[in-house]
Amino acid sequence: MSTAGLPMTVPAEGLPSRVRIHEVGPRDGLQNEKSVVPVEVKAEFIHRLVEAGLDTVEATSFVHPKWVPQLADAEELYGGLADLPASAGVRLPVLVPNERGLERALALGAREIAVFGSATESFARANLNRTVDEALEMFAPVVARASESGARVRGYLSMCFGDPWEGPVPAGQVVDVCRRLLDLGCDELSLGDTIGVATAGQVEELLTALNAAGVPDEVLAVHFHDTYGQALANTLTALRHGVTTVDASAGGLGGCPYARSATGNLATEDLVWMLRGLGVETGVDLDRLVATSTWMADRLGRPSPSRTVRALSPTKEQ
Amino acid sequence: MSTAGLPMTVPAEGLPSRVRIHEVGPRDGLQNEKSVVPVEVKAEFIHRLVEAGLDTVEATSFVHPKWVPQLADAEELYGGLADLPASAGVRLPVLVPNERGLERALALGAREIAVFGSATESFARANLNRTVDEALEMFAPVVARASESGARVRGYLSMCFGDPWEGPVPAGQVVDVCRRLLDLGCDELSLGDTIGVATAGQVEELLTALNAAGVPDEVLAVHFHDTYGQALANTLTALRHGVTTVDASAGGLGGCPYARSATGNLATEDLVWMLRGLGVETGVDLDRLVATSTWMADRLGRPSPSRTVRALSPTKEQ
Repeated sequence: MSTAGLPMTVPAEGLPSRVRIHEVGPRDGLQNEKSVVPVEVKAEFIHRLVEAGLDTVEATSFVHPKWVPQLADAEELYGGLADLPASAGVRLPVLVPNERGLERALALGAREIAVFGSATESFARANLNRTVDEALEMFAPVVARASESGARVRGYLSMCFGDPWEGPVPAGQVVDVCRRLLDLGCDELSLGDTIGVATAGQVEELLTALNAAGVPDEVLAVHFHDTYGQALANTLTALRHGVTTVDASAGGLGGCPYARSATGNLATEDLVWMLRGLGVETGVDLDRLVATSTWMADRLGRPSPSRTVRALSPTKEQ
Repeated sequence: MSTAGLPMTVPAEGLPSRVRIHEVGPRDGLQNEKSVVPVEVKAEFIHRLVEAGLDTVEATSFVHPKWVPQLADAEELYGGLADLPASAGVRLPVLVPNERGLERALALGAREIAVFGSATESFARANLNRTVDEALEMFAPVVARASESGARVRGYLSMCFGDPWEGPVPAGQVVDVCRRLLDLGCDELSLGDTIGVATAGQVEELLTALNAAGVPDEVLAVHFHDTYGQALANTLTALRHGVTTVDASAGGLGGCPYARSATGNLATEDLVWMLRGLGVETGVDLDRLVATSTWMADRLGRPSPSRTVRALSPTKEQ
């Protein structure tokens, strides 16, 4: 099939002229792989993503190697990205769980870090072995020290729309933790629908509640998972509301797309297809991005769950 | 994972209170299967869909068996659905390509038929071996005769947003064919994005152009394919515009979801998840629907491409 001239570009009202894509594939996507991906492959993946026009690529996480063996190569990987200069507008944020992780990242010259909190007590306990309050206490010196050193700080917030133990999560509860993360000094918040259950009305409600609490769209990013197929519709809703930063994962990497608890991230390619059709600038070269995700799928030995990658990939039909 | 209370119901402004789902799985979904599905399986599939609360289920197509061997059992299948009474609100539309097909359908008591036109010359030639004008001439006596006999007539229009040979399809061209189908006597039009390339702005533009040409939302249905992952976002856009009838396929049946030219329909389950979250009534019992699609996937020997089915299916994780 020819896709010349497709998608047809027809702008819609009420959308931003440009969207910043926060690419999470190398970190969020690969950290759940069962077999360890070689550091050379990760480095090439990140380089290719930047060459495809993604200017914000989350590179790795400085957690203790015992926690996530996939990330034991954080120093080596990050050190191999020194040729991707911040001066050219490339941003390579890294996750840090605590002060020790922060020092490791800063020592390598990281200019952008992220901490990861939870909107629910159940997930804070499961993921961080802490209460929500204790997690925020842990982040306080991390955010302060990062800010002092001039690094930009993103705060991830998990389970903003639903929780596997607690069910629905009230917007007010999310707003409260968001406010506290901003008060600590976070520059940006990423609202995560970690189990992919949100629908459009809930997205609109939370964003409106955040605005009412003095949190403007400019400091917000949305992070949707496609577990129930809702990620792109929810993203469009957030863009109509005024959000201009969207998290996505090249090829839809993340979780196992063929298992019951599929937790794949929104695929960057599906997002770029939509934004290209809407005339919203992203700076991304879709063909190069698809080629990159196809290459990565070959490395992982399974097809990409991204529908756009499957439609445009040059591999043979099955 | 528990999904008790999920998705959380939060209505959004500007949406209808109820959506009619036009279920196309048994016809549009199964007609592309390589191996013929036994007529008993098709009949059970349709019965299960009705029991799950879908009141409009497109049952089969009265095309010549030489064209589509999968549909050679149309008479036998339709005859086996006589226990699903129109008096209970069940609608079982069937496709008819010409007067001969219409007579076969009417002889079996069909009260709702559909003709299938094309917005582009290339697809009219490929699918019907006719020009757009010739196809409309062929439909004229079919629609007239169906209307005379009291049957409701749906007009399908393919390639409303893009065409594999012609690229982008201008809205004005689609509006023209829509007007002519309505002038023939069609009661409803289904706007098909046959190759799944549409994005939200284009959807909004076409619907607005149709309204301006005197075609109200009430006679329109939208029929999106998920080739580029856009189906649900486009559907939400159409609902916000005012459309209240949506075509979808149980389990996302249709085309081969794992091949390059994946042409899967919007999965009914993903649509129902969204509408449940938005508080929009559909009458569908999602658990029963997922059970039905899981059962059908077992019959076909491959997993459903619907993300919601994969998330909620009771089958073991891989």
